[in-house]
Amino acid sequence: MIKYPNGKVATKTAKQNIIYKNRGLNFEDEINLSNDYYLKEDVAVIHKKPTPIKVVAMKSSDVRRCCITEAYFQQPSTTDYNGIYRGKYIDFEAKETTNKTSFPLSNILDHQIVHLEKITKQGGIGFIIVNFKILGEIYLLDIQYILEVMKSGRASIPHDVFIEKGIIVPQGYVIIIDYLKAVDSYYFNIEGVKNHG
Amino acid sequence: MIKYPNGKVATKTAKQNIIYKNRGLNFEDEINLSNDYYLKEDVAVIHKKPTPIKVVAMKSSDVRRCCITEAYFQQPSTTDYNGIYRGKYIDFEAKETTNKTSFPLSNILDHQIVHLEKITKQGGIGFIIVNFKILGEIYLLDIQYILEVMKSGRASIPHDVFIEKGIIVPQGYVIIIDYLKAVDSYYFNIEGVKNHG
Repeated sequence: MIKYPNGKVATKTAKQNIIYKNRGLNFEDEINLSNDYYLKEDVAVIHKKPTPIKVVAMKSSDVRRCCITEAYFQQPSTTDYNGIYRGKYIDFEAKETTNKTSFPLSNILDHQIVHLEKITKQGGIGFIIVNFKILGEIYLLDIQYILEVMKSGRASIPHDVFIEKGIIVPQGYVIIIDYLKAVDSYYFNIEGVKNHG
Repeated sequence: MIKYPNGKVATKTAKQNIIYKNRGLNFEDEINLSNDYYLKEDVAVIHKKPTPIKVVAMKSSDVRRCCITEAYFQQPSTTDYNGIYRGKYIDFEAKETTNKTSFPLSNILDHQIVHLEKITKQGGIGFIIVNFKILGEIYLLDIQYILEVMKSGRASIPHDVFIEKGIIVPQGYVIIIDYLKAVDSYYFNIEGVKNHG
């Protein structure tokens, strides 16, 4: 039984209906576009943080701008996304996998999990969004279940945990990855909200 | 009359006492170290966002890492700092000026002010921290006063506005820029909190 934000239970056919293939955007672009929509409609203010880059060398190419000639990508110190929604601090990491039976925890850095745990201790909302690409299913999973799986010694989160504890993120055309519907459902006990989607 | 978080009024002598000169760190480093302290002590989770950089060209220098050979600094789309404190979403921009009589608004990008305004509409806390370097005074000023000054058509925020509407940010050795004390004072009506400082 897959939990949809509107309380509906998915059948095999309904599940296949949510697969929108090949829109020419990657998962991060899709989330960013969804955030743009949320921002424009005053639903939420959630942004992707820039990728941390260590600048090693620069030269002045002209008077107005400065050109970086040597730099390296760095590991992010926190998660990719944070912001505010319904007055609450929201923080999450979004990942995708081609795996069909589980989500390998190696996809998330340990200190990102520690960060999400700290967020919940401060009264914020922390979760991951996982796109099971081949299954065509996107889930929101609260940080507490990731910690539970880690404590049990597993190296990956079984797909069943997403089915049992996660919330399906609706996919659409206006809001491509409408994860705030899943946030509404899991954290605010609100189903089928009208104001976005 | 300068408002200190503990309700004290500054005399000329007290004011001079808060000037800690030449610690070999810049303002951003000092705020980052203060945030590290807050994080370590579970006071708050507030991070500086990485500087956005547009990568134009890369080459593989070796198997394990990839070297960026051409890149440019970009304008940030939001403010530099955000996070969570006392269950509330916190968002701010930190700037310094050598000006003694006012803070020029040209130091802050228009869309950063729009961003801070959106944050408060969502129920978050949005402000700027301004370091008047020569005066040795650091102030927290709520976004509403920046908007008021802008509406009045001024190109800078007079120092008097900081004195009247802002809160002095205490400077110390354990927490170099203890701006959460000013947050406590302005947003939570808490004075002289014990748990940090």
